[in-house]
Amino acid sequence: MAASTASFAQLFRLQSPLRAGCRSLHMLAGEPQGPVVKTEIPGPRSKELLGELSSIQQSGSVQLFADYERSLGNYLVDADGNCMLDVYTQISSMPLGYNHPDLLRVLDNPYNVKTMVNRPALGVFPGQDWPKRLNKILTQVAPPGLTQLTTMMCGSCSNENAYKNMFMRYRRQQRGEDVGFTKEEMESCMINQAPGSPNLSILSFQGAFHGRTMGVLSTTHSKAIHKLDVPAFDWPIARFPVYKYPLEENERENAEEDKRCLAMVDDLFEQWKKKGCDVAGITVEPIQAEGGDNPGSPAFFQGLQRIAHKHGAALLIDEVQTGGGPTGKFWCHEHFDLPTAPDVVTFSKKMLMGGYFHKPDLTPNLPYRVFNTWMGDPGKLLLLQEVLKVVRRDELLSVVRAAGDVLYKGLRSLEKEFPNLLSATRGRGTFLAVDAPSGKVRDDLVARLRAKGVQSGGCGEQSIRLRPALIFQEQHAHIFLDIFRQVLKETN
Amino acid sequence: MAASTASFAQLFRLQSPLRAGCRSLHMLAGEPQGPVVKTEIPGPRSKELLGELSSIQQSGSVQLFADYERSLGNYLVDADGNCMLDVYTQISSMPLGYNHPDLLRVLDNPYNVKTMVNRPALGVFPGQDWPKRLNKILTQVAPPGLTQLTTMMCGSCSNENAYKNMFMRYRRQQRGEDVGFTKEEMESCMINQAPGSPNLSILSFQGAFHGRTMGVLSTTHSKAIHKLDVPAFDWPIARFPVYKYPLEENERENAEEDKRCLAMVDDLFEQWKKKGCDVAGITVEPIQAEGGDNPGSPAFFQGLQRIAHKHGAALLIDEVQTGGGPTGKFWCHEHFDLPTAPDVVTFSKKMLMGGYFHKPDLTPNLPYRVFNTWMGDPGKLLLLQEVLKVVRRDELLSVVRAAGDVLYKGLRSLEKEFPNLLSATRGRGTFLAVDAPSGKVRDDLVARLRAKGVQSGGCGEQSIRLRPALIFQEQHAHIFLDIFRQVLKETN
Repeated sequence: MAASTASFAQLFRLQSPLRAGCRSLHMLAGEPQGPVVKTEIPGPRSKELLGELSSIQQSGSVQLFADYERSLGNYLVDADGNCMLDVYTQISSMPLGYNHPDLLRVLDNPYNVKTMVNRPALGVFPGQDWPKRLNKILTQVAPPGLTQLTTMMCGSCSNENAYKNMFMRYRRQQRGEDVGFTKEEMESCMINQAPGSPNLSILSFQGAFHGRTMGVLSTTHSKAIHKLDVPAFDWPIARFPVYKYPLEENERENAEEDKRCLAMVDDLFEQWKKKGCDVAGITVEPIQAEGGDNPGSPAFFQGLQRIAHKHGAALLIDEVQTGGGPTGKFWCHEHFDLPTAPDVVTFSKKMLMGGYFHKPDLTPNLPYRVFNTWMGDPGKLLLLQEVLKVVRRDELLSVVRAAGDVLYKGLRSLEKEFPNLLSATRGRGTFLAVDAPSGKVRDDLVARLRAKGVQSGGCGEQSIRLRPALIFQEQHAHIFLDIFRQVLKETN
Repeated sequence: MAASTASFAQLFRLQSPLRAGCRSLHMLAGEPQGPVVKTEIPGPRSKELLGELSSIQQSGSVQLFADYERSLGNYLVDADGNCMLDVYTQISSMPLGYNHPDLLRVLDNPYNVKTMVNRPALGVFPGQDWPKRLNKILTQVAPPGLTQLTTMMCGSCSNENAYKNMFMRYRRQQRGEDVGFTKEEMESCMINQAPGSPNLSILSFQGAFHGRTMGVLSTTHSKAIHKLDVPAFDWPIARFPVYKYPLEENERENAEEDKRCLAMVDDLFEQWKKKGCDVAGITVEPIQAEGGDNPGSPAFFQGLQRIAHKHGAALLIDEVQTGGGPTGKFWCHEHFDLPTAPDVVTFSKKMLMGGYFHKPDLTPNLPYRVFNTWMGDPGKLLLLQEVLKVVRRDELLSVVRAAGDVLYKGLRSLEKEFPNLLSATRGRGTFLAVDAPSGKVRDDLVARLRAKGVQSGGCGEQSIRLRPALIFQEQHAHIFLDIFRQVLKETN
């Protein structure tokens, strides 16, 4: 088998060569040829608007105010008329960039307008088109082996509810397939006590980000500011692999790191079992995003799946940020060559709505156990269906791989040119990051990029992350790399 | 003062008489004159669709599949062509019923279409129209005294995040206004331990429903099926007043019940403080909905506010189901004559998006403490703005009061006619409920209503709840009452 003889680094980086003759995608009609900066960013108009907003809410995270009427494709136009190449795309949530003509046309259709206006309680009164729409999504993009789909609203509530499915599955295993709830369970859960509200846990990783509501926040460990002052569940936290770069020069050490982390996971299962708080599931990002764009190797994820199944726990892969194509495959975990599908795959962001695919043994045995008023949003599914049509028609996964290849090689070359400023280029597809020597330098580089009309983002302590749209092409990669090189030269 | 001499029952029920000469609202053009039932409900087409959906997900809660293209105003049309008077309106989430012409017109505007398609990360790159839009909402409908607005996506995440604001406020009080985080707090929160992840609690009530993600689920105590198998925080739970009906005949007993419940709340504050798990906030619905449409009196809520403030805790009024007009005032807590505004008011459902109004001392001192990718949805705000315009233009709060008056009197009269089947009519505006003698009889009545073309809903153990749209008028109330009377006669 080719896979078994491939090196760690080969397996780790994207292997599939670009398909010869891949249809070249033209830029969106009217898309700018490059950034145009007219004022400092944020400019005077953005600053004025920030004053207004600050009187209503905490607005310290606002970077600028955008003009969404004039933004187009990969270019974000701000309130001061600055036109920026956007390689961050609303924290990775705009699959087709701004004002994609196919998406704008969705609402030309009066039927679709009615779908936007009549939002049902999907768990009780779904529209007659709903089963067909879900089936279409399932057959188009469900990870193989995951036949069940629960729709939600955002990443946090997708993970929260998927954790509930994992707890229910684990308790069903414990009590036996067809055993009902006891009176004691029914009564104790109403006052938040075991056995009805059981002592069970979800294992997560240092540096992980799974959202900010209180269940998933207990599995988020990326930055203190997300967690301070909020009560948390005492659940096990394992080390996530910290690799040495470049990967191809550090294969042995990185494989050792995988083993150390996996041993810790296995050990935590035993420790928490001894405490009377069994681990019902593992939650893990394929590439830790918010925590610093830390990737895990295929061997690491294969090991996690083995350990989860050994202990009767479920493996949840959180593809909220990686899902929908940016790694060059529709789901990042498809790079991992797992023996069987993960038990749950959660999504949001580029999928425009939240939700999760899962195996049938994660499906609640009774109605109303995983439920809420809206259970998703058909208006978002309409847009998602159009996105998926464009992804297929325009072969956007190939576009991502081609642009990602240019970006990756370009960043590696900049690393060599500016070894005191850049290191550890990593990622898959266009889902890429590179490290600065410190948080201060990183923030400075991001600010200088913006001053030259490139909107990027930070993550972790000192990383710059790239999260362009799926319509980001090789020519956009060259524009980004040219400007980044200017910034690095001026910083050096 | 008039208020102090008014009786308990007077204060409790809606007082304001209908304004003489209130503009009569015409039915929506083309709205059916009454229900038309063609098949059993669910009919053959709905059953076929249920088979399809069940292969993808747990669908036991689905009642029927709807035809949202043909539904109009107060009438829901299903996949089999049955046309039902809808007094449940998607679990109370359709303020203007189906296909309201003003809402359909919102998407005629290309600017609005772009708003639907370009969904930003509002915490980082809001559109230039965002501060003005939020300000408009604030000035139109914010509860007096609540100058701050945080937008979210749904009721659960609104409550989850509002709890976080309450925890942060409480910790700031403890550590002092301008004192930063300690190293120990920064480090301990990353592993879910105190003091960074503090031992603090939210006090909630028996029968409460505040959502289903793990933080708010720890404050939900309406039905076991919502909670079984999901870990919960050990937080204090007080008794919610259980009144005797009719209220005007049981004033003394009900006032005593208020006092008992308030004493328990006060006591729980002390108990949890002794346990080292201070109560940072109280969360409470103005009328417990899912838990059985249990109202609390103005005196009860005034007492809660007093106790919360005595202990330095915040009072959150969860108006997810009551907010937006159905009680005849825009916010139900406006009926309570509170000395000062509640600290937080959360909303969703009829507001079409989630969020909360709050006092400035609940605003996080630093960015990214309450944050997520989307922080709401400008596409929903567009629709909400139109809803508010229609509510004002068509004086829908008056419509609610008039229709509610007919409904309430009609239900009281049916109670007298069928004392073995109905009791305890209660509520405000059209937000009304009545009890059946058992869950079995309740389910039977709801099913028989549906068979005659009226979609209602159950709540609690044995209650029928009415949640019509704000465009539900007196003539619709008469149609409902006539059919309900037929059902009761046939059941008797």
